[in-house]
Amino acid sequence: MEAAILKKVVNGVNVDELFSTIGLIKQHPDIAKFKFRATNKWVDGTHNRATVKDFYGAGKEDDTRETMVFHLDEPPVLLGNNLGANPVEYLLVALSGCLTTAMIAHGSAKGIQIKAIESRYEGDIDIRGLLGISEDVKVGYQNIRVYFKIDADIPEAQKEELVKLAQKYSPVFNTVFNQTPVSVHLDH
Amino acid sequence: MEAAILKKVVNGVNVDELFSTIGLIKQHPDIAKFKFRATNKWVDGTHNRATVKDFYGAGKEDDTRETMVFHLDEPPVLLGNNLGANPVEYLLVALSGCLTTAMIAHGSAKGIQIKAIESRYEGDIDIRGLLGISEDVKVGYQNIRVYFKIDADIPEAQKEELVKLAQKYSPVFNTVFNQTPVSVHLDH
Repeated sequence: MEAAILKKVVNGVNVDELFSTIGLIKQHPDIAKFKFRATNKWVDGTHNRATVKDFYGAGKEDDTRETMVFHLDEPPVLLGNNLGANPVEYLLVALSGCLTTAMIAHGSAKGIQIKAIESRYEGDIDIRGLLGISEDVKVGYQNIRVYFKIDADIPEAQKEELVKLAQKYSPVFNTVFNQTPVSVHLDH
Repeated sequence: MEAAILKKVVNGVNVDELFSTIGLIKQHPDIAKFKFRATNKWVDGTHNRATVKDFYGAGKEDDTRETMVFHLDEPPVLLGNNLGANPVEYLLVALSGCLTTAMIAHGSAKGIQIKAIESRYEGDIDIRGLLGISEDVKVGYQNIRVYFKIDADIPEAQKEELVKLAQKYSPVFNTVFNQTPVSVHLDH
C-alpha cells in the first residue's frame, strides 16, 4: 500500500523533519554534537574581519557553505571608523537571531501559527571597565533588555509562554545568561 | 608660543586620543555610559534579519551610521536554508572581534608594535539541550576554545600578556564568561 506523505510545515519550519530529527537523536545521541567555528584577522586599529564557513554536526564535517565575511569596527567616539558594527552589537545580533529562532521552532512544534515577530535589544556598558579605569566596573554588558512583539491569533498568556520558551531553548541566551567557559590560547 | 602637535598612532590606534579620552572620563564618569542596540524581524522559518544603527554614548545619542543589516539562518541539517550564519556563529564573530580589539587597544596603549593577529574559535553545542530532548544537557555553548597567532617582535611572554589583556578587557568575553542578566519582555 502506498501512503501519500504530506510534509507538515508550520511558520516555514518543517515540523515533520524536526520531530524525525528528535526521534533519531534519541536513538543516537552522538549526532546531537555540533561544533561551530569562526576565524578573525585583525585589519587595522579597531577594524577586524571575521569569517564563518565550516562546522561539524550530525556526525560529519560540513564545508559546503560559501565563506561568510563580517567586518567589525568601532564608531569614531570609540576610536574607530565605522567600518562595521562593533563586537558588542554583534552579540546583540546573535542574541536576537537565537531568541527568535528558538521561539519559532518551539512555537511551530506546538502548532502555533505566527504572523510576525519583532524584537529590540539594548545593553548597557560602562566603558570605564574595558578601558581599565576602574576595577569595580563590569567589563561586559551590565544588563541586556529584550522586548518582543508577537503577532498571532493566540491569547496573551500563550504569547508570554512563547517568550519563556525562547529563553529556555535559545543557546545564545543561555551562553550569555549563564557562565560559559572560554579558554584562550596562544598558538606557538 | 605655538607647539607642533604630533598625533601618536600605534597599530592604527590613536593612542593620544585614547589617553585623553581616559583623562576626560576620569573627570566625568557619566560619559563612560554607553547603550548599544539591535532590532530583529523574523522572516520565515529559521531565517531572520537583524539591524544595528543607533547607540548612546559620551552623553548623547548617535544616529549617524547607516543601518547595518545581518541575515541569520541555519544550515539544512538544522532545518534552515543557509541564508546567513547562524546565531551561535554570530556569537563567535562577536567574541573574535572583541578579543582582537581589546588586544590591539591595550597593546597599543603599551606601545607594542603588532604586525598581525589571527585567531580561530570553536564552540561545542549538544543540540539535545536546545531541542528539549534532555534537561541535563546545557542549552548554550558547553565550551568555547580560542587560539591566537600574534606576529610581533616581542618575547613569547609578552605575547602571552597580550592574550591575558584581551581576556581581561574584552566586553564580549566577559559577557559570555561571566553571568550576564538578560531580561526578556513581551510588549503589549
